[in-house]
Amino acid sequence: MSGGLAVIAGSGALPAAVLAANHGAWMVRVEGVEAQNPGAPEIGARFEELGRLFDDLRAEGIDTVCLAGAMRRPALDPMAFDPKMRALAPRLAAAMQGGDDALLRLVVAIFEEEGFAVRGAHELVPGLVAGPGLLAGQPPDRTARDDAHRATAILAALGPLDVGQACVVGSGLCLGIETIQGTDALLEQVARTDPALRRGARGVLVKRPKPGQDLRVDMPAIGPGTVRGAAAAGLAGIVVAAGSVLILDREDTLAAAGEAGLFLLAQ
Amino acid sequence: MSGGLAVIAGSGALPAAVLAANHGAWMVRVEGVEAQNPGAPEIGARFEELGRLFDDLRAEGIDTVCLAGAMRRPALDPMAFDPKMRALAPRLAAAMQGGDDALLRLVVAIFEEEGFAVRGAHELVPGLVAGPGLLAGQPPDRTARDDAHRATAILAALGPLDVGQACVVGSGLCLGIETIQGTDALLEQVARTDPALRRGARGVLVKRPKPGQDLRVDMPAIGPGTVRGAAAAGLAGIVVAAGSVLILDREDTLAAAGEAGLFLLAQ
Repeated sequence: MSGGLAVIAGSGALPAAVLAANHGAWMVRVEGVEAQNPGAPEIGARFEELGRLFDDLRAEGIDTVCLAGAMRRPALDPMAFDPKMRALAPRLAAAMQGGDDALLRLVVAIFEEEGFAVRGAHELVPGLVAGPGLLAGQPPDRTARDDAHRATAILAALGPLDVGQACVVGSGLCLGIETIQGTDALLEQVARTDPALRRGARGVLVKRPKPGQDLRVDMPAIGPGTVRGAAAAGLAGIVVAAGSVLILDREDTLAAAGEAGLFLLAQ
Repeated sequence: MSGGLAVIAGSGALPAAVLAANHGAWMVRVEGVEAQNPGAPEIGARFEELGRLFDDLRAEGIDTVCLAGAMRRPALDPMAFDPKMRALAPRLAAAMQGGDDALLRLVVAIFEEEGFAVRGAHELVPGLVAGPGLLAGQPPDRTARDDAHRATAILAALGPLDVGQACVVGSGLCLGIETIQGTDALLEQVARTDPALRRGARGVLVKRPKPGQDLRVDMPAIGPGTVRGAAAAGLAGIVVAAGSVLILDREDTLAAAGEAGLFLLAQ
């Protein structure tokens, strides 16, 4: 990068990880978003004043941004829009009718139109994603490999419909498919499943991006909580797509898998 | 039918409905299965003695059977197997490794090999399934029609993988896909969904058979409980496949939909 980097910070541990790994990067603290700062210089911002944010970024020589962490859809005050935001409002309003994907794609497009490069957290922090290989636990047995294969096939079938980043299969039984409630809710559903229906099946969680998902701003992630949820659901292990699923708090995540006796495989 | 009819009775209201609509039909009461008898002559049976059951059926001039109602996989006592059951055991044991579909297909095949015709409850009781049309409520609006269309597309994508008889979509968001936990669990999941994720969406439940499902022994069904679950989940309505989804307790089901302000559409 010739110029500087700014992290548009959402909640969770990711923004701080990007800032810690990129000395001299700025943190953009958006009003109403809870974000942790490990000591980076800050730029304050409001969604209503995107024009001012673009100006502030340029004034600091920033030419690259990274949208990291979770951000809920903001409630916007149209009375407070700056001229740039007023110009963008019709496009934003239209995208807000669609899914989160459509909105994120538009936000990325807007930053790019303003001349900023948009980079993903995984491009800026070494080790955030895993290359192919067994990260924790014992290699999956035949049943677990077959379950992972079936869960992957289910996600592949749903991909064109923009549904499903995660699926749990146990001894061939489909125990759950992630919908908008997210992976934790999926694992809770599996944990609640009537044992008579489940018939002793353990199971495997497979997590992968959907085809066409912009990994720079919307990457599937697992963390220690995912591992604990999988353990509570009685699963045998977790399979993530190599290179395209974030492993948050990597050390804790791998340790949690080891403690729970779960395998964690990237493939 | 030239000969008699016997209903192999599982739990729920369906076996009694078949018996009530077919005067002179016999009820087969399987040991360990809770089943209601509206006054039909009974034949007692055990899974371990299928050979004796076939003989008893033939002795009563029965040439047609209907497997109706829900039946859990039995725990079998191999010491009590009769010769026929001993001969069938390897095939049954193999099928039990697979899904419920494989096991049901084998049970149907065994009855057919023994010379019995296997008929579906919907073939023996008029009005159990609905022809195309609006059964209750107001016609769905544009949003609900689009949601039904998307849910149907999701089920169609999953069909080849033998997953998913039901799906809920609300304002384009996929709120849930039925897995082995069943439709009631799916509706509870939708009801529990964080309103911030759901963003005010109501939604439509679509229920259809999977392609290749043997409708004689395994037909999707809805009933008053489904309607109440859909209402509790805030849905706008329910769409079922015309001619291939059982409407149990039809009068109560339609009344419940009317009371809750839900549409019920077969198409």
